[in-house]
Amino acid sequence: MNFILASGNAHKAEEFGILFKDSNVTVKAAPTKLEVVEDGTTYQENALKKAQAYYEEFKKPVLADDSGINVEALPDELGIFSARFGGEGLTDKQRAELLLEKLLDKEKREAFFTCVLCFYISPEEIYFFEGRMEGEISDSYVGDGGFGYDPVFCPKAFPNKTVAELEEWKNANSHRAKAVESAVKFFKEL
Amino acid sequence: MNFILASGNAHKAEEFGILFKDSNVTVKAAPTKLEVVEDGTTYQENALKKAQAYYEEFKKPVLADDSGINVEALPDELGIFSARFGGEGLTDKQRAELLLEKLLDKEKREAFFTCVLCFYISPEEIYFFEGRMEGEISDSYVGDGGFGYDPVFCPKAFPNKTVAELEEWKNANSHRAKAVESAVKFFKEL
Repeated sequence: MNFILASGNAHKAEEFGILFKDSNVTVKAAPTKLEVVEDGTTYQENALKKAQAYYEEFKKPVLADDSGINVEALPDELGIFSARFGGEGLTDKQRAELLLEKLLDKEKREAFFTCVLCFYISPEEIYFFEGRMEGEISDSYVGDGGFGYDPVFCPKAFPNKTVAELEEWKNANSHRAKAVESAVKFFKEL
Repeated sequence: MNFILASGNAHKAEEFGILFKDSNVTVKAAPTKLEVVEDGTTYQENALKKAQAYYEEFKKPVLADDSGINVEALPDELGIFSARFGGEGLTDKQRAELLLEKLLDKEKREAFFTCVLCFYISPEEIYFFEGRMEGEISDSYVGDGGFGYDPVFCPKAFPNKTVAELEEWKNANSHRAKAVESAVKFFKEL
């Protein structure tokens, strides 16, 4: 089954292509990027909004994803707003450092990443999957792999390393990898 | 698989119970009705919003539905707004008669009902199905079966009768029946 990715990011389409290799799902970049207002209240709603917009435009099965990080000590600030934390115009690094600053001297550092995948085959048939990666916010910014909040997030499996230091592990164990795993299993059995 | 219905309408839960008999899906009324703001832009978004709210409250798999009628000559007035057409406080009959009035002397009478079902097992696993029933808006209000716009809608299969005169046919061929049929087939194979 072939999907176009609801994103203007060619690199992201390539990443999904790799995650879905050895499955019966293929993912290609969309012909053009669309501007979609992501004003949903959950990852699922935002993924659905993106999927609908691309399906409406291109009339082909669409894969849309939405993801973010939830930080227990800052319940309303990240989550679906993760990419805008601290305001528009910040770099990934500035956002990650702002997060460290806000958690300075805080005991409570639990956090988890979420990835939601929406497979929008048509309005008649839509499937969602979600994956999570649990862990804690680190004390400092470490590592140069990954992106986003990876350099300030230590997964449960490696409490003393950030995901930015664990690229290989991340490829198989991230929230995105887990969501993809559920989807691959599902489409194999469908 | 057992679902609670994201609706305060016990009658509706019973109807779904009947539609899903002979399947491995059971549907029960939710313990209490929740107020959910249905401000999505599609049936799918509204169904997702209802499902999320009930799941959040009861932590059990939820079935949410959303439905409406799209009338080609009035593209922006019905659809997800079908239940509010003409403003709050109208009866079903008043709404249906208003629709006839707005289409008076109009040649273009094509319309279709849509039913979207959202099976929200958990945030990790959500499945949507959609069913449609195509036809035309009648010239007059006929029949006392069904509800909503049934007395002013003639399905393609019976262009001279309204769905309100075709209760038995409707049970097996409506937009809701078709969405349920897809879901039953899906859950059987899952």
